[in-house]
Amino acid sequence: MRIAHIAPVATTIPPPKSGSVETMTSLLTEGLVAHGHDVTLFATADSRTKAKLCAIYPHGYWHDENMWPWELYEMLNLAAAVERADEFDIIHYEAAYYPMSLAFARLSPTPIAQTLHHSPSEAEVKLWSHYPEAPFVAISNEQARLLSGLNVVGTVLHGIDTDNFTFRDKPDDYLLFLGRFTAGKGVLQAIEIAKRIGMRLILAAAEDDYYREKVAPHVDGRHIVYYGEADFDAKVKLYGGARALLYPIQAREPFGLVLAEAMACGTPVAALDRGAVREVVEQMVNELPRVFDLDRRRVRDRAVARFGVERMVDAYIDVYRRIVEAHRV
Amino acid sequence: MRIAHIAPVATTIPPPKSGSVETMTSLLTEGLVAHGHDVTLFATADSRTKAKLCAIYPHGYWHDENMWPWELYEMLNLAAAVERADEFDIIHYEAAYYPMSLAFARLSPTPIAQTLHHSPSEAEVKLWSHYPEAPFVAISNEQARLLSGLNVVGTVLHGIDTDNFTFRDKPDDYLLFLGRFTAGKGVLQAIEIAKRIGMRLILAAAEDDYYREKVAPHVDGRHIVYYGEADFDAKVKLYGGARALLYPIQAREPFGLVLAEAMACGTPVAALDRGAVREVVEQMVNELPRVFDLDRRRVRDRAVARFGVERMVDAYIDVYRRIVEAHRV
Repeated sequence: MRIAHIAPVATTIPPPKSGSVETMTSLLTEGLVAHGHDVTLFATADSRTKAKLCAIYPHGYWHDENMWPWELYEMLNLAAAVERADEFDIIHYEAAYYPMSLAFARLSPTPIAQTLHHSPSEAEVKLWSHYPEAPFVAISNEQARLLSGLNVVGTVLHGIDTDNFTFRDKPDDYLLFLGRFTAGKGVLQAIEIAKRIGMRLILAAAEDDYYREKVAPHVDGRHIVYYGEADFDAKVKLYGGARALLYPIQAREPFGLVLAEAMACGTPVAALDRGAVREVVEQMVNELPRVFDLDRRRVRDRAVARFGVERMVDAYIDVYRRIVEAHRV
Repeated sequence: MRIAHIAPVATTIPPPKSGSVETMTSLLTEGLVAHGHDVTLFATADSRTKAKLCAIYPHGYWHDENMWPWELYEMLNLAAAVERADEFDIIHYEAAYYPMSLAFARLSPTPIAQTLHHSPSEAEVKLWSHYPEAPFVAISNEQARLLSGLNVVGTVLHGIDTDNFTFRDKPDDYLLFLGRFTAGKGVLQAIEIAKRIGMRLILAAAEDDYYREKVAPHVDGRHIVYYGEADFDAKVKLYGGARALLYPIQAREPFGLVLAEAMACGTPVAALDRGAVREVVEQMVNELPRVFDLDRRRVRDRAVARFGVERMVDAYIDVYRRIVEAHRV
């Protein structure tokens, strides 16, 4: 299949450190190429890919404050693909934070699949429903439920490169919080849980205002330890050494990539049943001791089966085929 | 000519109170209709126009916090016109604050003229120059100079409805500041000038944080008077009664609509020579007494000749013709 994959142009594909959309875009692109598809990746020139790279910008707008407003950079990156629509069977757009693809839905001779990466509001879905024919891909059933009235062609859970998430059978003796420091991610709840059961908690995320105001006062370097932002290798080590990942999420999230990543390292997850968590964590448990008792090898095996890149690539090819088929009719 | 005129969808066309882009969009639309052109206005459903109204949204996003992110509303409003491009000879887009029209430049069979309403940065112009063929309309020579490398088809100064700006020969004894309360608009400088020459200054603009923090401490209700935000009728009265409009602008501005409006009422303007001010205020003077000596009738007559709607409408028709002609070649 001739596939145009439109990445966000905030940073490189794959990203230098964190960036779930960029990571997932890279994995899917390389997976599609490995399957023999003819893929053109629309991304920044400093990206690394085995696909054909079409780059309008030398680097992303996260690295250049003159590149503003960022929305126009995203828009023209997508437009560059639509202008060459005849060369592709399908265009796949990874939304920045809203589906710009709709603006091109009726102008492009080639269908544009839109993957969403956030939980949309009712007003957003109402706006988008002006284009009831435009094909959306949901990243969880939780998210798909919010998209009523839209053409949700399929639900494809994110994949992760499970080979790179090294399994570790014998963890160290700490709990882990990994993610952004926001109220929605529940870092204060994680701290409370760790204090109550008297276990060490390592916090790994980039420092920000929320950290300085709300989190730092709890950090003592012994029981509550601040690690900083972890790059990929550090992240894998942190997952592997943790008795459990704490994920006391407060906001509804369409997906939680860290859950899949932790489990791929064999690390069980203690999470609240909000948003899409139930879909990601099969073994939902209320009490940490029972989480600790989970067989880490089994946790890993289930994660590989559910979140392997192969599964994601196959699922997207299936979605693309259905969209192309429906477009022909 | 069959013209699609794409308004911002922030509020009604014309706007309830202030809104220079919305006002100018309305004047141009109605002027084009009066000249017998077949105009379709893409705007909110609560707009008033003699053109055909194509409305996707019942009201604008200024009035509805659920309509967010606003960029997508603008984008789909423009897309709605491009989807019907075959029905128009030209599509004219009034930029929100960046030229989204570029995303459609090579997808629309009908040319899209883009009027800019801000002073772009070098980085913006560099991005836009990916589309060197896309036709821009500048609103002042000052702005046109910034657009090097782009296809600037013409410069058209904004028009105002000079009939509605009642001429007043004998003003009262105050100075006027009218605009937004920002550092760039120079309200603190206006206050300083008024204090120095011992004249009353009336401030007319919507209350905001800048007002509360920086401006309000100077307001005593006698020498420095806060009026609030003026609707159209109040604005005309305020202009007419002023000995002069103070416009000590600090930022580079592509145009200053208040200058044209004040002059249409016969009120001379004391301004700093920054941005496009020199193009708008012919009679640039450094000392207020000489400003007061200007013949108000002459100020009015020159304003009518230079900023009448007729002139703007004629100039746009000329620009449209040139764009359509160039597109045919």
